[in-house]
Parts: sequence; structure tokens; C-alpha cells
Amino acid sequence: MSMHTLVIYDITDDNLRQSVSDACKRFGLVRVQKSAFLGLIPSSARKDLIVLLRRLLGESSGNIQVYVLCRADFSMRIEMGKSFEEAESEFLV
Amino acid sequence: MSMHTLVIYDITDDNLRQSVSDACKRFGLVRVQKSAFLGLIPSSARKDLIVLLRRLLGESSGNIQVYVLCRADFSMRIEMGKSFEEAESEFLV
Repeated sequence: MSMHTLVIYDITDDNLRQSVSDACKRFGLVRVQKSAFLGLIPSSARKDLIVLLRRLLGESSGNIQVYVLCRADFSMRIEMGKSFEEAESEFLV
Repeated sequence: MSMHTLVIYDITDDNLRQSVSDACKRFGLVRVQKSAFLGLIPSSARKDLIVLLRRLLGESSGNIQVYVLCRADFSMRIEMGKSFEEAESEFLV
């Protein structure tokens, strides 16, 4: 079963942060903020992602949180301001 | 009815970011990451908070997302690494 999965993180180490964002992408999540990824992925993929994130973080300093949202909860999601892609594309103009 | 509410934001302007974090605190949310607040608050408070956040952000650049989590979804929340308070207290030592 696929459920919306949100990953948010606070990581100061550049390499570790990059690894975490790469892992989120590899598992089908899309960046929705600088430090937030979201996607509708199978529960099995979410579990594998969590295992990988735990291994990546290890004993390093940082904080990663994973939230699962059912359809009803996801429908209540509210976004204000520009989405990440729109905001990013301004830098490319 | 109270539901867990998660607010995450990407805001570069220092004053605006401070106003947003103050608003989250005022409505009973607790900081769980540098740019993430979480709390079990009544739906009426969540709606008022959303109105306030929308007004604060206005036409400024930035992105704010609000997620609502039912009890079942919240029970699947996973946190890795130090929580915000633990991480912060290291600076005070």
C-alpha cells in the first residue's frame, strides 16, 4: 500500500545532508522545501528508506523525521508561497 | 477536535522567519527542528494559525506547509538523531 511520506531533516554536515537528499530522491520522494521531501510511495519502500536513513545518520549529529499521511490527512495539507521548483527556477532566470 | 499539526517552512528573511516561529509557539506548537513546529492543537486553533501564517507570509518569498496528522498517522512518526532540545542544550554547556 502506498502512502504519502514526508521526510524533514536538520543536518549541518554538507556531505551527510547530500546523502540524505539523494536517498529520498532514490526512493521516489520529491523535494518540497530545502530540507523536506514528499512522495506517495509503497510502505515497503518507506521502510527501506528509513533503514537507509538510520544507517546514513548513524551517530552523526542531526535530526531526521519521517511522517506518514493517509489520504484524508494528506487532503488537508496546506501550502503557502512558492513551491520549491518555482522558487528555484528564479535563480535560473 | 485536536489533531497533531506540523508546520514546516523555508523562509530566508530573518524577521519573517521569527514572526512565523513566534506564531507557531503562540498557538501551542513546539519546535522539533530548526524550521519545523509540531503540536496537538484544536482544529479551530489550526485554522486561526493558518490565517495568521498566510497574512504573515503575504507576497513575501518563502514557503510554509501545514500538515495534519490523525492519531494513526502520528503513531507512525519516526525520529532519528537528537531531538531539537537535546541538540540545542549542547550549545549551552
